[in-house]
Amino acid sequence: MMKRRIAEILRSSQPDETVTVRGWVRTKRELKEFAFIEVNDGSSMANLQVVLDRSLPDYEDLLKPLNTGASVEVTGTVVESPAKGQRIELKASAIALYGESDPETYPLQKKRHSFEFLRTIGHLRSRTNTLGAVFRVRNAASHAIHQFFQERGFLWMHTPIITASDCEGAGEMLAVTSLDLNNVPRSEDGAIDYTNDFFGKPAYLTVSGQLEAEVMAMAFSNVYTFGPTFRAENSNTSRHLAEFWMVEPEMAFCDLTEDMDLAEAFLKYVFKSVLENCPEDMEFFNKRIDDSVLATADNIINNEFERITYTEAIKYLEKASKKFEFPVEWGLDLQSEHERYLAEELFKKPAIVTDYPIEIKAFYMRLNDDNKTVAAMDILAPKIGEIVGGSQREERLDVLERRIREQGLNPENYWWYLDLRRYGTVPHAGFGLGFERLVQFMTGMTNIRDVIPFPRAPLSIDF
Amino acid sequence: MMKRRIAEILRSSQPDETVTVRGWVRTKRELKEFAFIEVNDGSSMANLQVVLDRSLPDYEDLLKPLNTGASVEVTGTVVESPAKGQRIELKASAIALYGESDPETYPLQKKRHSFEFLRTIGHLRSRTNTLGAVFRVRNAASHAIHQFFQERGFLWMHTPIITASDCEGAGEMLAVTSLDLNNVPRSEDGAIDYTNDFFGKPAYLTVSGQLEAEVMAMAFSNVYTFGPTFRAENSNTSRHLAEFWMVEPEMAFCDLTEDMDLAEAFLKYVFKSVLENCPEDMEFFNKRIDDSVLATADNIINNEFERITYTEAIKYLEKASKKFEFPVEWGLDLQSEHERYLAEELFKKPAIVTDYPIEIKAFYMRLNDDNKTVAAMDILAPKIGEIVGGSQREERLDVLERRIREQGLNPENYWWYLDLRRYGTVPHAGFGLGFERLVQFMTGMTNIRDVIPFPRAPLSIDF
Repeated sequence: MMKRRIAEILRSSQPDETVTVRGWVRTKRELKEFAFIEVNDGSSMANLQVVLDRSLPDYEDLLKPLNTGASVEVTGTVVESPAKGQRIELKASAIALYGESDPETYPLQKKRHSFEFLRTIGHLRSRTNTLGAVFRVRNAASHAIHQFFQERGFLWMHTPIITASDCEGAGEMLAVTSLDLNNVPRSEDGAIDYTNDFFGKPAYLTVSGQLEAEVMAMAFSNVYTFGPTFRAENSNTSRHLAEFWMVEPEMAFCDLTEDMDLAEAFLKYVFKSVLENCPEDMEFFNKRIDDSVLATADNIINNEFERITYTEAIKYLEKASKKFEFPVEWGLDLQSEHERYLAEELFKKPAIVTDYPIEIKAFYMRLNDDNKTVAAMDILAPKIGEIVGGSQREERLDVLERRIREQGLNPENYWWYLDLRRYGTVPHAGFGLGFERLVQFMTGMTNIRDVIPFPRAPLSIDF
Repeated sequence: MMKRRIAEILRSSQPDETVTVRGWVRTKRELKEFAFIEVNDGSSMANLQVVLDRSLPDYEDLLKPLNTGASVEVTGTVVESPAKGQRIELKASAIALYGESDPETYPLQKKRHSFEFLRTIGHLRSRTNTLGAVFRVRNAASHAIHQFFQERGFLWMHTPIITASDCEGAGEMLAVTSLDLNNVPRSEDGAIDYTNDFFGKPAYLTVSGQLEAEVMAMAFSNVYTFGPTFRAENSNTSRHLAEFWMVEPEMAFCDLTEDMDLAEAFLKYVFKSVLENCPEDMEFFNKRIDDSVLATADNIINNEFERITYTEAIKYLEKASKKFEFPVEWGLDLQSEHERYLAEELFKKPAIVTDYPIEIKAFYMRLNDDNKTVAAMDILAPKIGEIVGGSQREERLDVLERRIREQGLNPENYWWYLDLRRYGTVPHAGFGLGFERLVQFMTGMTNIRDVIPFPRAPLSIDF
């Protein structure tokens, strides 16, 4: 028997019903004849307003400890609320206090706190309206992601967190070790002796599950990963985390067009699902954080994404009357300002740019017939720039081996990845989506550290 | 437009329908008038039998490369199958080869391979019947876990992977660092200087998300984690992994009885859901891996779990006629043989043992009024022993502080965890389930390395 939650009571309880709720006091307001206590249990943005009548036995003693943050169980009768903006309220017949919250020391008082301050109390900040809404939306988006893929027969695959390989040859990895750092063992030639390290060789935190997802797609056709990934980038910005969650579907028998179709359907689905499941929270963001988030969601859901090649994108950018900070030239990567111009100003909706120059993309992307571009695609969104990056993968053994070598990597380290092309290779494609970027995009939250419960960044590992 | 999968075709396609499938050849059998090609796309255990008629143009050339592991696209007409055990087969009108698979070198031939051997080809082993079934069951169980909690209003919370705290004070953690191991920086007193490490202090891979889940439960009431956790235990056994997935729900306003109720409902739900969604795979395990898995699932789903205290359990064990290897005495922890005796032989169904001696359990478990036991619970299952471990958490600030000190830990390191008891503390409880153990239990697979796609264990970090 599950206990009733406030969200459900606010939605469906009828006058005269007797209900019991449990939650935390948000505010207390004393009037002459009664007091109002706003109680929240995290199930919704809205509080349940509890009315304490002065006629209650021990009214003063009951009321005294009901400060912001205190935990209570309230039993009472549902009554229609005379107040605006709430259908019902609860006339208390009994109140039990679980735990007090000293108003002299409790850090969360009624006033508005800065997000910077809230990050220093990461163990309490989820009790605020904004962070509460963020993590409800985060959960709704997470579940929508699973629903989307499971409905389509994709299998959720748990790819490894600790790895000896470096997906993109990009460096920036955090090392994992059981060696005693006070006394790192050396072999005779002075090199670090990893034989006594836990894995017997250098190990790192993964930057992507893609290569392993390809392994699984070659057995199950359609799979996806949804798990933590890591970057040791020393960038202390509002857009980077050392630990973040990534979604990476991988599909066998799939080309770049089908990859784009899936990514577009995916984004529409997740936005739609969040709007349906968290309407109050989304309205809150629109009102208090960024007044364009509902319009943005609407834009994503109701527009066919524009699709252009990188070469076309460069032409558009060259013709633009706008002055860009970074140069525009075929062969150079698009910068955030270029991406935003295309999506926000030129097309006024998401745009998918395809077929990037080979020099600026990873070795595993499929070489096009022009020998100059690869079958990559990035989805650029208004306000945020790149939100999805994907590609058709190089499935031809000889081309892939050559490209690995061209990047200065050793094909031997990729023997198992190459085996996928040796035995029953198929055209396949996939994409990656940084989950926190998506939540930022949905909610309008400007700092990525405010959309993950316990952010990890340079010098930041509290809680 | 998603392509059709073999599972769906086998289930619902009707004779005379024209269909196209894509997959990998499992076997080829040549007869006089035609050849049979078994094609699998990972959507089901069952293959689609493709019939190649000798009258097809270029029959010999088409047939030649269709070896085990080759990838193909087949278009044809669905016909009723005269063969036993399959409703339909596909009469091919066109076959296109995507990729060959040289029968001289492809490691997966028709014969049965040992699981040890398959682990050496982790990038190919999912293409076998057994591993294919394992990962379909793993996905179905994963999704059932999300469904169970989401249906009940629990929020999925992503707790941190990299942490500076050690949940249980248990040690056995893997370190995460960006320091140059060739040249570990020292401060003046000779100690390691972590100021230039990525996080500015020693960092580790988490052993549990519980403490952070408690933080979130104090804001959202009901939450769960489902993510990777780590142990550096140097035990090279069939039951341990260095990296494994754990499910940890945490509920505010919840006592030990409600915690047990939830855990029991949870296990029943997940088993039921897997039986419904993977009936063929489960039958395969029962037939080929362990002939008790269906009876075990049935036992879990249809029996009310026995509930006894640890003190009662000790009495039962003392009275048992069975000889145990390890001593039975109040105060000693239950060993696997004791756990299995209780579940398998005495009760013949899952048993929940509660109220363990304080000395053998973690500091955060709630002290009972007898001052000798804590409100812990372990679910013991036939065949496997402990499958779930949970507890009501100590919500009283003074008791918790004392218990932290008694374990030789420093309360200052737990300041934020203690704050949860300082501000609006509530009775709360939760449990943990090692996901791979659950999948082992469901499938009967004896080695835990065969139920996770890419196992991580001492000296083992391939792929």
